[in-house]
Amino acid sequence: MRTLTSLLGIQYPIIQAPMAGGATTSSLVAAVSNAGGLGMVGAGYMIPDQLKKQVGEIKTLTNQKFGVNLFVPVPYTLDEESLAVSEETLRPILMELGIEGMPKLPNYQEDVRTFKELVNILVEENVPVCSFTFGLPSQEIVTKLKANSSLVLGTATTVHEAIINEKAGMDAVVLQGAEAGGHRGTFAGREEQGLIGLMSLIPQAADSVGIPVIAAGGIMDGRGLVAAQCLGASGVQMGTAFLVCEESGANALHKEAIIKATEDQLVLTRAFSGKMARGIINKFIETFHGHEDLLPDYPLQNELTKSIRKASAAIESTEYMSLWAGQSPLLAKQLKVSELMQKIITEAERLKRNLNP
Amino acid sequence: MRTLTSLLGIQYPIIQAPMAGGATTSSLVAAVSNAGGLGMVGAGYMIPDQLKKQVGEIKTLTNQKFGVNLFVPVPYTLDEESLAVSEETLRPILMELGIEGMPKLPNYQEDVRTFKELVNILVEENVPVCSFTFGLPSQEIVTKLKANSSLVLGTATTVHEAIINEKAGMDAVVLQGAEAGGHRGTFAGREEQGLIGLMSLIPQAADSVGIPVIAAGGIMDGRGLVAAQCLGASGVQMGTAFLVCEESGANALHKEAIIKATEDQLVLTRAFSGKMARGIINKFIETFHGHEDLLPDYPLQNELTKSIRKASAAIESTEYMSLWAGQSPLLAKQLKVSELMQKIITEAERLKRNLNP
Repeated sequence: MRTLTSLLGIQYPIIQAPMAGGATTSSLVAAVSNAGGLGMVGAGYMIPDQLKKQVGEIKTLTNQKFGVNLFVPVPYTLDEESLAVSEETLRPILMELGIEGMPKLPNYQEDVRTFKELVNILVEENVPVCSFTFGLPSQEIVTKLKANSSLVLGTATTVHEAIINEKAGMDAVVLQGAEAGGHRGTFAGREEQGLIGLMSLIPQAADSVGIPVIAAGGIMDGRGLVAAQCLGASGVQMGTAFLVCEESGANALHKEAIIKATEDQLVLTRAFSGKMARGIINKFIETFHGHEDLLPDYPLQNELTKSIRKASAAIESTEYMSLWAGQSPLLAKQLKVSELMQKIITEAERLKRNLNP
Repeated sequence: MRTLTSLLGIQYPIIQAPMAGGATTSSLVAAVSNAGGLGMVGAGYMIPDQLKKQVGEIKTLTNQKFGVNLFVPVPYTLDEESLAVSEETLRPILMELGIEGMPKLPNYQEDVRTFKELVNILVEENVPVCSFTFGLPSQEIVTKLKANSSLVLGTATTVHEAIINEKAGMDAVVLQGAEAGGHRGTFAGREEQGLIGLMSLIPQAADSVGIPVIAAGGIMDGRGLVAAQCLGASGVQMGTAFLVCEESGANALHKEAIIKATEDQLVLTRAFSGKMARGIINKFIETFHGHEDLLPDYPLQNELTKSIRKASAAIESTEYMSLWAGQSPLLAKQLKVSELMQKIITEAERLKRNLNP
């Protein structure tokens, strides 16, 4: 098996997680790639023109490999009852924030069209690494990307999903541990089944698939990198650690909230989007406590709460923002990407030397 | 800081988790200690005479260090409404199994008396390592045990709890990751706050306390041991890996269920005891799905379900048994303790050699 670094054409086995929603600016992505890792664009919520523009921008900032992540559209049904539960809970918040008018609900056929256009951009722009979350791309897409010499990465939260990724022809699979911040990538089974800590998920998956596995969730430094490698991972994907970096486009309030958070404040919630995700507990999450299972599916709830999250940020309040983060906020440091990368690599090398049997 | 092995007086930093309920036979405990680890008795449900007898037995089987774990009694209130919910759900199962008569409910004052008697046995018998779960022993007990040259270990599921352990004078603290099987040790905060994966929990706790931290949860082999050490742990505590060993007194059906389980079947439930615990999903857990939050507190629910668990085992059915296990069942191997210990140590040494840059 080729090493992950030679497979991806990078110097260090460190991937910057493709966080959708604004954190992965061109300057963040390029800084990671220029520092020897793999920078990635979180394009899950993008329209085609945005992605095309950003890929072009990144190419002017780095000549190193980089990647793009897309969300695979999954069918959903509009259930009037759950819509009513959500709207009733959201109404007082909408009023408090002075938001008028109802949001336009998403449409699955449109989502599928957008996804196809985004894939076409990956092909046209020869994006070196294409990763997918919430499901797997069709065989047709996999074949097209591979014919174009792109590497294709999938996401798994269980051993079972890792095996599905391998069978679908993925070149490597990102193992999302229960520690991870943001949305759960579980696509085969109930979300609760996919909450496996990396100490368990990595070795069991590494024993079960032949493709390289990449560990994601709570990894913030050289200790996490080497630990993941010990367990059988070929590399790591780090989100929160890069989200708080200077080059990240995450809201300053979001960065600050992570720096201040304690390890026991990172909760799982469906309140923001209808899909389980990990973030710092706040008023919005508490408001939905106890009736999260009645909410509309992703991406319906996500559209219903969009204006609230935006308005909350606009008035510089974290009360109703989605403050995604993994379970290791105490390890977060506000550094430049180059400093963070250097720190991780130095720590990892020292640790390996000191481990001498 | 002294190494954990020199602190505990053992050869390898491997502790056999003190699993209450029958798995930790004298032959298991002695085999682990004789193989260079620390064998431990799970005395959480024992009466004083049982503990006294077992400690005596272990002393005839090994001259190495060993330990005993006790559950610290925590006050609870008998709530008629939750009792009714539980009894209503249990009634058809009791009928199905032909169980007559209601169980005797526990009494907190009695639990406290028993706990004190158990502590007295630890003192009288000079038990080398005394560990505690579900809370911390009083300052008086800590002082008494330390004056007796016993080492005192506590359990933590958050960084916050690890700090409380250090302040209470514990010699070391077991970090129970979200991966762990059996009951959650969370004692300061809601159970949900204490579900932190070891990839996050170990480094954050290691940075925050001065006492050695011991990692527990999903660790089954040399990879887990070295990974935990990389993250900052001084050693590991392994439950499921020892539970399936030949010398373990766990029910053969329980061992077999672990060997056959897949990684996505290990769920968290309050159904068996009123306290959150991880085990293999079965009919009993499914029966309580959706109204677990309405059940009586631990140990009330535990007493209410005891006869059912026993009767289920008696008819060789796993449907109503508590099949506690961590999140790594695919790594479980039915070996002798000496073989398992040798395997872990050999793997760990090879791994460390291969990691050196």
